[in-house]
Amino acid sequence: MQIEKYKIDEINQQHLAKHRRQFEFVAADVANLDLVLQKLGAFNIAIPSWALGTGGTRFGRFSGGGEPRSLEEKIEDVGVIHALNKSSNSISLHIPWDIPENAASIKALAAQVGLHFDAVNSNTFQDQPNQKHSYKYGSLHHVDKAVRKQAIEHNIEVIKYGVQLDSKALSVWLSDGSNFPGQLNFRRAFQNTQESLQEIYDALPDDWKMWIEYKPYEPNFYSTTIGDWGQSYLLASKLGAKASTLVDLGHHLQGTNIEQIVSILLMEGKLAGFHFNDSKYGDDDLTVGSINPYQLFLIFNELVEGMDARGMNHAKDIGWMIDASHNVKDPIEDLLQSVQAIKIAYAQALLVDKNTLVTAQNNNDVTLAQEILQTAYRTDVRPLIAEASLLAGGSIDPVGTYRKLNVRANLIKERGLKTVATGL
Amino acid sequence: MQIEKYKIDEINQQHLAKHRRQFEFVAADVANLDLVLQKLGAFNIAIPSWALGTGGTRFGRFSGGGEPRSLEEKIEDVGVIHALNKSSNSISLHIPWDIPENAASIKALAAQVGLHFDAVNSNTFQDQPNQKHSYKYGSLHHVDKAVRKQAIEHNIEVIKYGVQLDSKALSVWLSDGSNFPGQLNFRRAFQNTQESLQEIYDALPDDWKMWIEYKPYEPNFYSTTIGDWGQSYLLASKLGAKASTLVDLGHHLQGTNIEQIVSILLMEGKLAGFHFNDSKYGDDDLTVGSINPYQLFLIFNELVEGMDARGMNHAKDIGWMIDASHNVKDPIEDLLQSVQAIKIAYAQALLVDKNTLVTAQNNNDVTLAQEILQTAYRTDVRPLIAEASLLAGGSIDPVGTYRKLNVRANLIKERGLKTVATGL
Amino acid sequence: MQIEKYKIDEINQQHLAKHRRQFEFVAADVANLDLVLQKLGAFNIAIPSWALGTGGTRFGRFSGGGEPRSLEEKIEDVGVIHALNKSSNSISLHIPWDIPENAASIKALAAQVGLHFDAVNSNTFQDQPNQKHSYKYGSLHHVDKAVRKQAIEHNIEVIKYGVQLDSKALSVWLSDGSNFPGQLNFRRAFQNTQESLQEIYDALPDDWKMWIEYKPYEPNFYSTTIGDWGQSYLLASKLGAKASTLVDLGHHLQGTNIEQIVSILLMEGKLAGFHFNDSKYGDDDLTVGSINPYQLFLIFNELVEGMDARGMNHAKDIGWMIDASHNVKDPIEDLLQSVQAIKIAYAQALLVDKNTLVTAQNNNDVTLAQEILQTAYRTDVRPLIAEASLLAGGSIDPVGTYRKLNVRANLIKERGLKTVATGL
Amino acid sequence: MQIEKYKIDEINQQHLAKHRRQFEFVAADVANLDLVLQKLGAFNIAIPSWALGTGGTRFGRFSGGGEPRSLEEKIEDVGVIHALNKSSNSISLHIPWDIPENAASIKALAAQVGLHFDAVNSNTFQDQPNQKHSYKYGSLHHVDKAVRKQAIEHNIEVIKYGVQLDSKALSVWLSDGSNFPGQLNFRRAFQNTQESLQEIYDALPDDWKMWIEYKPYEPNFYSTTIGDWGQSYLLASKLGAKASTLVDLGHHLQGTNIEQIVSILLMEGKLAGFHFNDSKYGDDDLTVGSINPYQLFLIFNELVEGMDARGMNHAKDIGWMIDASHNVKDPIEDLLQSVQAIKIAYAQALLVDKNTLVTAQNNNDVTLAQEILQTAYRTDVRPLIAEASLLAGGSIDPVGTYRKLNVRANLIKERGLKTVATGL
Repeated sequence: MQIEKYKIDEINQQHLAKHRRQFEFVAADVANLDLVLQKLGAFNIAIPSWALGTGGTRFGRFSGGGEPRSLEEKIEDVGVIHALNKSSNSISLHIPWDIPENAASIKALAAQVGLHFDAVNSNTFQDQPNQKHSYKYGSLHHVDKAVRKQAIEHNIEVIKYGVQLDSKALSVWLSDGSNFPGQLNFRRAFQNTQESLQEIYDALPDDWKMWIEYKPYEPNFYSTTIGDWGQSYLLASKLGAKASTLVDLGHHLQGTNIEQIVSILLMEGKLAGFHFNDSKYGDDDLTVGSINPYQLFLIFNELVEGMDARGMNHAKDIGWMIDASHNVKDPIEDLLQSVQAIKIAYAQALLVDKNTLVTAQNNNDVTLAQEILQTAYRTDVRPLIAEASLLAGGSIDPVGTYRKLNVRANLIKERGLKTVATGL
Repeated sequence: MQIEKYKIDEINQQHLAKHRRQFEFVAADVANLDLVLQKLGAFNIAIPSWALGTGGTRFGRFSGGGEPRSLEEKIEDVGVIHALNKSSNSISLHIPWDIPENAASIKALAAQVGLHFDAVNSNTFQDQPNQKHSYKYGSLHHVDKAVRKQAIEHNIEVIKYGVQLDSKALSVWLSDGSNFPGQLNFRRAFQNTQESLQEIYDALPDDWKMWIEYKPYEPNFYSTTIGDWGQSYLLASKLGAKASTLVDLGHHLQGTNIEQIVSILLMEGKLAGFHFNDSKYGDDDLTVGSINPYQLFLIFNELVEGMDARGMNHAKDIGWMIDASHNVKDPIEDLLQSVQAIKIAYAQALLVDKNTLVTAQNNNDVTLAQEILQTAYRTDVRPLIAEASLLAGGSIDPVGTYRKLNVRANLIKERGLKTVATGL
Repeated sequence: MQIEKYKIDEINQQHLAKHRRQFEFVAADVANLDLVLQKLGAFNIAIPSWALGTGGTRFGRFSGGGEPRSLEEKIEDVGVIHALNKSSNSISLHIPWDIPENAASIKALAAQVGLHFDAVNSNTFQDQPNQKHSYKYGSLHHVDKAVRKQAIEHNIEVIKYGVQLDSKALSVWLSDGSNFPGQLNFRRAFQNTQESLQEIYDALPDDWKMWIEYKPYEPNFYSTTIGDWGQSYLLASKLGAKASTLVDLGHHLQGTNIEQIVSILLMEGKLAGFHFNDSKYGDDDLTVGSINPYQLFLIFNELVEGMDARGMNHAKDIGWMIDASHNVKDPIEDLLQSVQAIKIAYAQALLVDKNTLVTAQNNNDVTLAQEILQTAYRTDVRPLIAEASLLAGGSIDPVGTYRKLNVRANLIKERGLKTVATGL
Repeated sequence: MQIEKYKIDEINQQHLAKHRRQFEFVAADVANLDLVLQKLGAFNIAIPSWALGTGGTRFGRFSGGGEPRSLEEKIEDVGVIHALNKSSNSISLHIPWDIPENAASIKALAAQVGLHFDAVNSNTFQDQPNQKHSYKYGSLHHVDKAVRKQAIEHNIEVIKYGVQLDSKALSVWLSDGSNFPGQLNFRRAFQNTQESLQEIYDALPDDWKMWIEYKPYEPNFYSTTIGDWGQSYLLASKLGAKASTLVDLGHHLQGTNIEQIVSILLMEGKLAGFHFNDSKYGDDDLTVGSINPYQLFLIFNELVEGMDARGMNHAKDIGWMIDASHNVKDPIEDLLQSVQAIKIAYAQALLVDKNTLVTAQNNNDVTLAQEILQTAYRTDVRPLIAEASLLAGGSIDPVGTYRKLNVRANLIKERGLKTVATGL
């Protein structure tokens, strides 16, 4: 299904007066209003193909209804999201869950709903039926060259699919690690990984990037071979300019100052982009901004400051993607909430009074520095997001509109109550 | 398959001289040697029926070969373990994964290999096919009375199965919780849980116990309704004397002083028993003693001290069970290692010089108190474990013997390479 | 120094037009505006006497200027805070740092600036000169009865000071614990603590409360004898109706769901109150709301819901106090920011649409439940706080006004640049 | 005071028979016994000059008696330790707490008791009386160039003291960081630090090293400018071959896999050395091996494997130092226990059956790999340590001998009951 624009407009119309009042109130205090709206309008966050179905845990999975049964239906779902929020204009494919059999028709289908293809993602953390070698003990870090080779070839195949779809980046997440002390020689595991990545790197088209993700634990519970930003950075710097470090917000130990890592990686020109989600304990993969929205704002504060310092384009020079698992919510609603939370944090960061902040920092005026950040954070920027969406032809209130249009009920009617999308 | 005793004896024979030398060395310094050996001999740890198959994570599961295909085969596997270590004389069933269709024959089968049935475990964290109400949003804490009623009835049914098998305890682990702020009213969730447990409690036979487990997170990632020992204790004290708190070592936040909780629960007469495993990050369900064996020793130090203070029988007055997930090891080997680690910690705790320790504590002689604990801990007690096993007709070296007897190869021959046991 | 009201009014006047516009905007959407303003006006947070000086760490302390040199000057400082925010009408004394030599004159002095005395705090975590027994190895839990007796008597003396000042609660924080395994017998330490508290409890006047704080670690780094809410609750329930559990936000392990603990303690009628601060790692004692303001909101959401469910008076039936350490900020500014953050969280909690939330919870509509909480949280409630302050005769912008009035410069002039207040 | 060797010998004599029996038992199974003993004999751990006094926390400090009142007395104390364990042949000075007024005489004094000088440590985390600029807001990262310059000059001065003492390394620990979001621009703080370190680096003698420590938090509680190994490594690699990363065991977030970091740093040739201690929560600075001795073993397992892979000399090519705080123990006893724990871990690591382990790793035989490590770990290696000490003229049982010789009582007699050594 697709949402026709007039339906969104109709519902917008009902809320327009209220929106106008709210927008005008907040806009009155925004110095560079047009620029802010323009940046908000240009800002898009990719939706991963595996996030359209209900997620689960090792203890079980409680599917919802109307889940997409094919790549085509996943594109449809992202189309729905993008129609509503005008901020999700791309989809990030996971291979082999979502192999595009016919790239041209898939591209055309996506284009119809305003979408293109973001980074492609390889999977060497699961065994596929009929796979020659098992990844039980890892892939790119494996002690057995034959397993590494298989994993390398899979990544190169993923690049090929990506080329067909006009993707420009390969996102590599390895679950490679160990469950017990003694299982691995860390050094050799690292070196094997480096060699394997080098072969993949060498197969990258010139205009592509390799995004190297890190994660401290899960599914391995003693060590992960690319376990923290330092290890990812080390690999990326050895590989070369096309390689950089991808930050998944949930992939950190408790207490990690993620915004500082973001700042350092930006400084070094090695920040690939983000997998957004939120968490309270580990890689909980919860809706972005649902647990600690201030941290999200602080990250965006570093992003805006650091990208501006390097003259980067906020919308294009970094990869933005959601990577969450929707265990108890309608996945589309959850994604709409996540995108909304990201845009709120971004808007707040745009409102930070940078000049005054720099002065406060130079004076070690800690009280004032905090006030400046919190003044931006405490501002209710939702009307700015709504206005930017409205200007782009989207909805003032994406979740509300989604509900009013009974999208899920329609999807269930089309696809059935018992469908299970590929993914975790 | 069963391991014939003479085969174990044959292999023991090969190591006997070395064992004798080692045993005599360590025994020379053990004051109350006979008592220690007797206690070690009496000490058994239950094996859960779901631990005989390869475990997995939300990212996948890499099955091994020869996994048990039925409850009967699971009993066979526990029989193998017990034949080797003489310390695993019971099995803890999980319903509905392992429903005993014919209790009498199952009991007889178990008895043949020296086993009886420990606590029975209910499951309201997954939906079973054809289940009327879903547990997606919880079970005993659910906002809907009909769901709670279904979960209560399931627990009562589990008790019935247990009665047929001569079990004496119901172990309740609830995954009930929430993923997002706002999802739950904590108070009502707690009160619903209390009411539901009360109904189950009222259905317990007089000589039964109810063991209430707690866990801070997973599979819910914002709150768990029985989230810590305090909440479990609160429920157990409201329910009555038959209810107490079960400690799963992996179910704690980082840094929790578990041994102190053990001491407090023992003091209050509310320590039900243990689910043993080890972890570095969260509920990693790793082999017992594989990550932090000193912590395990400290827990046993509290157990020995606290149980002795109450005149409790170490072997019988507490429930001992392993609850681990074997993602990269042969499950039987993993269980043998876990039992070994537990017995080592127990033996070390038995060696603590209590009188001197009490004196040191009363003098605030912190250096000496540490020396006393570490003297016991640093003692190589493996020969004591081996001797106790030998005396009971088991193996000096369970894992080594298991390998020499090619048990797994035989199991694969019998059961096939591609079997998947029920469980996580 | 005291701030004359007309000076605050003058500065308010400069911001009044802007404030009116902002207030009217937000007020238009607040259903029960008068009630909200009345509750905000009635809400006060006590200032501890030790928080007026610059704090430090074990690595050093960098004093600021103009710190209060006496209890009288501390009262003066709280007077300044209260004049500005009209939300800090009491002071919580620490004995022996701030012994009131003449209670009548101290009360009169406090009354002049609108203050009364909140809970009194005992100190058995430091040795005072000429103290007979040392607290090096604890106080109320000590193995030596003579030490316990000394600590009990100190607490009873603190109550006597409190009676003179019309305090109504004794706040007990024990650092008692251990640094190494073996140092303590946990059970005996707990029982000694219980006995000691019982003696203090018996000395409490009828209309007094005993607030029992818990903390997992620091200054002891292996165990704390009252280490978590469960242990504090256990003591409080054994002691009786006048004893209850005090929650210091920084006294939790990483990941603890504090709001759930708040809900459970309220349900059991055992929530004494709060020590407010914020933290990223441990007991960091940072400005309230500076690190995770959403968590603070979630706590207030539980407080409002749970207190309303028991018909409690928000302003009076719970103890509210700040307990932070101001290592790099002007303490008065830091305290003003903390009170502001608390009132923002409280106002947001008051705005939660409870009826819709209950319906969403009963429908397991997780998306909507999150939206409802976040709608309240994302509202910019600062104009409501400002209006409540204005109505009470306080400042629209306490920190800004404090700066414009050059309060710190005046204090330095009066007291000198090199003064060090008693405290940590 | 000095311990005369004959007194140690006398006490050794009393335990010799028992020792012989124990040593022969364990030695029988050690393949390369002479080499192991030789390595244990060569292994020394430096004692920091600030560790001879009782430590404290921000909540207070409970001094013991007989603390050294001068650098000379500190050298005496380390002399006592070294006489007993023959494994602490150097002292690491902290400037300005222990400025050597006359280097020649200090060196002579040290040499008399067999000591030389390890790394020198600078201090820019505290203000000294009459210091021109304050380090309240940092030192090498400071926004103000004048403060940075002062801190640079201090470090260069420390190098000069070190040169006089024949030290060969400067150890730099910065507390520089921030307490609140907004306080710092992370990038500029990092760049300032880099520039400052460069100036210090340029002043290093050719045969010197610069050891760069990292720490995630404390005394700053939002960010530390050199917060993790990745940031330290980044600085060290920008500075050059003389700079490398120092690992303090307590300076990690909960759950960090420190042994993996050790392996990576060794692989990159950037591991400077260690500050040893143990912890349960944060930088608890507890006795080495008192909380998690298995982790210590795992770290030494990586060290032995990784240093051997690079052909490094265990005793000389890495800096080994204790950095603990002795809040409730006699500092000398605590240090003796720490050194003992380190040597135990080292001996266990030397016993790991490397060839079998490599084979197990290459076969992904996880069970066996664990068995191999735990076999070494579970071996009671204390008799090996005792033998190595005996061979070097030290004590079989350092702590016991220290007590039998009444060293502390003698120190109190010499120095008084109320002395407080410089340090934390």
